[in-house]
Amino acid sequence: MKALEFDEASAACIQALELAGVPTENARIQTDLFLEAELRGRPSHGVQRLPRVVERIRNGVADPAATGRGTWRGDSFLDVDGQRGLGPVVAFAALAQIAARAKTTGIAVAAIRNCNHIGMLALYAERIAQKGQILIALTTSEALVHPWGGRRAMVGTNPVAIGVPAQPRPFVLDMATSLVSMGQIHDHANRRAPLVPGWALDANGDPTTDAAAARDGAIAPFGGPKGYALGLALEVLVASLTDSAIGRDVRGTLDATQICNKGDVFIVLEPAGSAAGVSVSAYLDAIRACEPADPGRPVVVPGDRAQVARERSLAAGLSIPDGVWQDIVELANPSTTISQANHE
Amino acid sequence: MKALEFDEASAACIQALELAGVPTENARIQTDLFLEAELRGRPSHGVQRLPRVVERIRNGVADPAATGRGTWRGDSFLDVDGQRGLGPVVAFAALAQIAARAKTTGIAVAAIRNCNHIGMLALYAERIAQKGQILIALTTSEALVHPWGGRRAMVGTNPVAIGVPAQPRPFVLDMATSLVSMGQIHDHANRRAPLVPGWALDANGDPTTDAAAARDGAIAPFGGPKGYALGLALEVLVASLTDSAIGRDVRGTLDATQICNKGDVFIVLEPAGSAAGVSVSAYLDAIRACEPADPGRPVVVPGDRAQVARERSLAAGLSIPDGVWQDIVELANPSTTISQANHE
Repeated sequence: MKALEFDEASAACIQALELAGVPTENARIQTDLFLEAELRGRPSHGVQRLPRVVERIRNGVADPAATGRGTWRGDSFLDVDGQRGLGPVVAFAALAQIAARAKTTGIAVAAIRNCNHIGMLALYAERIAQKGQILIALTTSEALVHPWGGRRAMVGTNPVAIGVPAQPRPFVLDMATSLVSMGQIHDHANRRAPLVPGWALDANGDPTTDAAAARDGAIAPFGGPKGYALGLALEVLVASLTDSAIGRDVRGTLDATQICNKGDVFIVLEPAGSAAGVSVSAYLDAIRACEPADPGRPVVVPGDRAQVARERSLAAGLSIPDGVWQDIVELANPSTTISQANHE
Repeated sequence: MKALEFDEASAACIQALELAGVPTENARIQTDLFLEAELRGRPSHGVQRLPRVVERIRNGVADPAATGRGTWRGDSFLDVDGQRGLGPVVAFAALAQIAARAKTTGIAVAAIRNCNHIGMLALYAERIAQKGQILIALTTSEALVHPWGGRRAMVGTNPVAIGVPAQPRPFVLDMATSLVSMGQIHDHANRRAPLVPGWALDANGDPTTDAAAARDGAIAPFGGPKGYALGLALEVLVASLTDSAIGRDVRGTLDATQICNKGDVFIVLEPAGSAAGVSVSAYLDAIRACEPADPGRPVVVPGDRAQVARERSLAAGLSIPDGVWQDIVELANPSTTISQANHE
């Protein structure tokens, strides 16, 4: 593990992206998403994804300069063609437009298609809630989850994020509708550790605890039939709003070669006023103070643990696996990058 | 069980409500909600709730004539004071306004406070989706659910409904974020049947399988920590938008004497177009055709079972428990009702 100062890591990521042709401002936005995920202990959405972004640019399936083209389909509905842009670049540009619009209309939505992976949703929710608005964020993914009672992966991991203004910090939910992530399956496979029964099916659709077999199979929805129903609802909701690909037709968030055809939806709303904010904050404090089942494990409000992790990481430095960091250092080195480009 | 023609049941319910002072149109709307729940096999949201509505009117905590007062807080944000009106009356009035508005703005929201229990959310989702729009519906409830790892009921059962246009019928999700309903706990207590471990806590916050003890305790969120996080997110989202009561301060959906202070939120959106609709419908058919784990149990799409139940009930008649039906017949009988009123 390499322990890195935030600024050092940030500079290297930005340089690596710039060398791949990403304009500085866009490189900053993409790096921000990666590093905020690292800070919060979410390495699956962190800098390990940077080399794939560079590969996707080289392969022409990500446009490093695009910021997306928005069309107001109504006063409060922004239809966004992401123009194959980097996910966070397109997403933040759309979000800024609907956040401004919601201030006068009360609510506004951005339906985004044709942009790359937008990263950890929590960051969008937190940024909007910090400025006093509510965010609902949805995005689809490759089909990795089996329907409840089905034998085949047909539903995305379809995360949902909800940010609500509160003190001392916003309420931030960010969760996938799968029971576990495909990253956890790969991690178990790499460590040759067995899976918990019920987590996954193999390629034949049979239950398995063999992580290697599960990589080609399907992971379970969280929460049984209800979690399946919710994940499916988000799949059709996003597809219906964005006209994006759906189910097993979704591509481009896990590979380096295919155009990313999933959809993203942001809804920004204006809260009722300061009285509601005070009451939400007091309620969340009461939840934190709820007598715990296990005296050693206090009740947690979504977003709290991520903030603690973030503060700890900022103080102690980022822990990034050596191999992951080495790849970024190489991509950030002009001579390596140029010689690589010449080979291609 | 009384097997009833739909029209006969409807006429009796409407008459019972009219005798309680409900204008005919409002009585029709409230009856519609009750009977559609019965048709779909959801008696917990059916006519057994009618006597409580009448009681609430007599107690002055429900206004039978009110339809709610909407104020546009922005072009797309309808702030609704429900004026203590009947839930479905206020809800459908608000929904009609935002559905019309969303046709030009693309999205519109109604944030409703101060109205009574709005009933089965599925019906709102289905009606909107049948007309080609998308609905997200949220409502809070009395705190019946314990936080994950907590010992006390502090979160509502907070259901979410999502309706999306599709053929041959709309996609309709309608689910509570609790693992089971308090109705199921009461049902087990009445039958002296033990609960499944993990369903509930007793009044001391200890896990119990004694249904009678669980009635004064708390029920579990569905899906462990994720379901808890989602239910909590919906609680703060609704409270933040409606400035309604929150957590243990919520009253009036289970009792007959207190003003109902929960909140309801409807968001109506315009789908992308007919291509998206075709792709959603094809995807849902593929889900239905997914090879099942158990050959005898095909994979189900949310809303399908309810539609099958509805068609069966319309053909065979409604099955309503004798006691429940008897109460309605009495309330629908002018002489009984008048003599009762004279006693009060």
